[in-house]
Amino acid sequence: MKVPLEELERRVARLQRYLQQENINGALLAQRLDAYYYSGTAQNIHVYIPQEGRPLVCVFRNYERAQVESPWTVVQLQGLSKLPEFIQEAGLPLPHVLGLEYDVLPVAQFNRYLKSFANVEMRDISAAIRLQRAVKSPWELTRMQETSAVSEKVFQRVTEILRSGITEVELQSELDRYAKCLGHEGFNRVRQFNMEFFFGCVTAGDRAAVGGYFDAPVVAQGVSISYPQGCSHTPIMPGESVIVDFALVVNGYMVDQTRNYAIGFIPLELQEAQKTAQEIQERIRQALVPGVVAGDIYQETIDWVKEHTPYEQNFMGYANNRVNFLAHGIGLELDEMPTISLGSKTILEPGMVLAVEPKFVFPGLGVVGVEDTMDVADGGARFITKGTRDIVIV
Amino acid sequence: MKVPLEELERRVARLQRYLQQENINGALLAQRLDAYYYSGTAQNIHVYIPQEGRPLVCVFRNYERAQVESPWTVVQLQGLSKLPEFIQEAGLPLPHVLGLEYDVLPVAQFNRYLKSFANVEMRDISAAIRLQRAVKSPWELTRMQETSAVSEKVFQRVTEILRSGITEVELQSELDRYAKCLGHEGFNRVRQFNMEFFFGCVTAGDRAAVGGYFDAPVVAQGVSISYPQGCSHTPIMPGESVIVDFALVVNGYMVDQTRNYAIGFIPLELQEAQKTAQEIQERIRQALVPGVVAGDIYQETIDWVKEHTPYEQNFMGYANNRVNFLAHGIGLELDEMPTISLGSKTILEPGMVLAVEPKFVFPGLGVVGVEDTMDVADGGARFITKGTRDIVIV
Repeated sequence: MKVPLEELERRVARLQRYLQQENINGALLAQRLDAYYYSGTAQNIHVYIPQEGRPLVCVFRNYERAQVESPWTVVQLQGLSKLPEFIQEAGLPLPHVLGLEYDVLPVAQFNRYLKSFANVEMRDISAAIRLQRAVKSPWELTRMQETSAVSEKVFQRVTEILRSGITEVELQSELDRYAKCLGHEGFNRVRQFNMEFFFGCVTAGDRAAVGGYFDAPVVAQGVSISYPQGCSHTPIMPGESVIVDFALVVNGYMVDQTRNYAIGFIPLELQEAQKTAQEIQERIRQALVPGVVAGDIYQETIDWVKEHTPYEQNFMGYANNRVNFLAHGIGLELDEMPTISLGSKTILEPGMVLAVEPKFVFPGLGVVGVEDTMDVADGGARFITKGTRDIVIV
Repeated sequence: MKVPLEELERRVARLQRYLQQENINGALLAQRLDAYYYSGTAQNIHVYIPQEGRPLVCVFRNYERAQVESPWTVVQLQGLSKLPEFIQEAGLPLPHVLGLEYDVLPVAQFNRYLKSFANVEMRDISAAIRLQRAVKSPWELTRMQETSAVSEKVFQRVTEILRSGITEVELQSELDRYAKCLGHEGFNRVRQFNMEFFFGCVTAGDRAAVGGYFDAPVVAQGVSISYPQGCSHTPIMPGESVIVDFALVVNGYMVDQTRNYAIGFIPLELQEAQKTAQEIQERIRQALVPGVVAGDIYQETIDWVKEHTPYEQNFMGYANNRVNFLAHGIGLELDEMPTISLGSKTILEPGMVLAVEPKFVFPGLGVVGVEDTMDVADGGARFITKGTRDIVIV
């Protein structure tokens, strides 16, 4: 599925307005998803977006595919040193001030740009790009609804295969196989340097409650010291809380969803906490309206949990391992803007999409909670992901 | 499985010799695999290795796990600005010259280091680290042999499930499920900025011969414009050459292997080319001895193909889409040093491990070739991956 021309035109026009406001002459985008977002092709490219005029797609590989996929001017690029030449040959002025993605661009590559673009002032525009990408168009929301339809089937599959003695890896890998056959693209993109999302987080019992390196409330044990997150080779037993946290991608767009299961029964304590998690999620959902400051929702929720529940130490991780957010932006990547997090000044806009994931961690016992992808709208965010949020006993 | 102390001591000692030679006072390593390689923990950490003395592991998350996993001094870190303080508190002198990983470190993070380490000269040490990591110890080679044993079983599984009409995604996802249940960690790490390896490359017929963005001889069609590599949802038919290129990981260490299959029969032209690919691989294997310059093997092989085969335009991609390498280093990452590539000056050492992958691409028809992981040794490289290299007809 190609990104429609009108969609690309609107995206480029919005970035160009920003460049004009900031007196930046052009943006040079190298990061895979930024480049795809503005050009429509995910080949190995650099996209140059001038303050006004037509974007230029410079392709390392594969030229033929990029040309079919992107409506902009597409040229074959040999090396980074040729970039200024190509800009001029496309009839565009050389920039005096050039915008780059400092949050992801490696120093070595940045240094090559400094050499190619002599006497050009470099400026970080990554926050502006991320903020633009945070607001999804109706076309993008439709894509995410399509992904959600696949996600719903994958969660239904859990009840068919979950049984006593199946290992976390067996459960995860069968869900992954099933999801790919339904259209899941199999790989969850994460923007942040050094962050990796292995196989989703399918985990149960006390393994789920093990703290970890990833910036998430539930990281779990993982399969080894070198791959220290997500599922383990431990069998799942009756009475354990089974957490299925799966982010699925179809046509580039991801949704993130968590549901809980148990074989036979689940301790009353965890059932109670699950009800509280659902209540918190509903409070956050209602608060996700345009104009609100993200950090305010965070603080109000934390205060509420402290005042109305016995779970302050268990919320969003345990004790020192608690994370400072309740929800993360999602779209082409798992860690988009905005976040509902400590001190966030982001003002919510219609079309921002968040995965809202209140979770409680009880060391030695397990994890409960819920996660849904939803878009900010008047009257409260709208669920993109579906299905019961109660613990499903099989 | 923990990395043994002696292994970590040897790794740190070798880097320290380099730092001494280059008059660099310390190395600050942030990249996940570099940090794991020298510390034994893959948590979210920075490792500071002084020119002499004990390394310091500064942990963002998870402190408890990092402390159990690494034998070095482990401290909890709040923010990057505290790094110099922690170095001093550990009894180490502040560096005048500091080594960093310029090939992967984002500009924004580099700028934060510049602020924290005022008046410190920064130096790129990524090539030295990559060259050190290229040479595998006997302990590492044993890990890769263990991964190979899993890989062998996964390739045997192909013959059990390959049948007319199975889609490429169905074949790939079942192999992936099976591999994970046998210990495959499910995620192939790639160092280079913007490079991603989705699900291995399981592809057949003319889809396999489609050029793509990834720096590999076979990229294939992929599932969508946004995920443009590897398997597609197209059914595999009799007579098509089925390429199974799978990189598997166990305990962090990866092997990469490609085998060919066909249902019922395969065109004679592809059979002939496959024999030639095997002959080329054997020639390269014999040339992979200590002391040889990598680029020389590349040039000799290219010349040989030109002179002795009709496939010059089909070798390592087709026409303009040919890549400039025949083999890539492999270990914790898929794109390690050395490469057998155009102009490479790397001198081979015993213990360097390469995935040697001569492949022929015939547009509209398909792809054949072979890939094995092997370690450089006197008398020629030794196969780490096993199993018949002939096309298997099912």
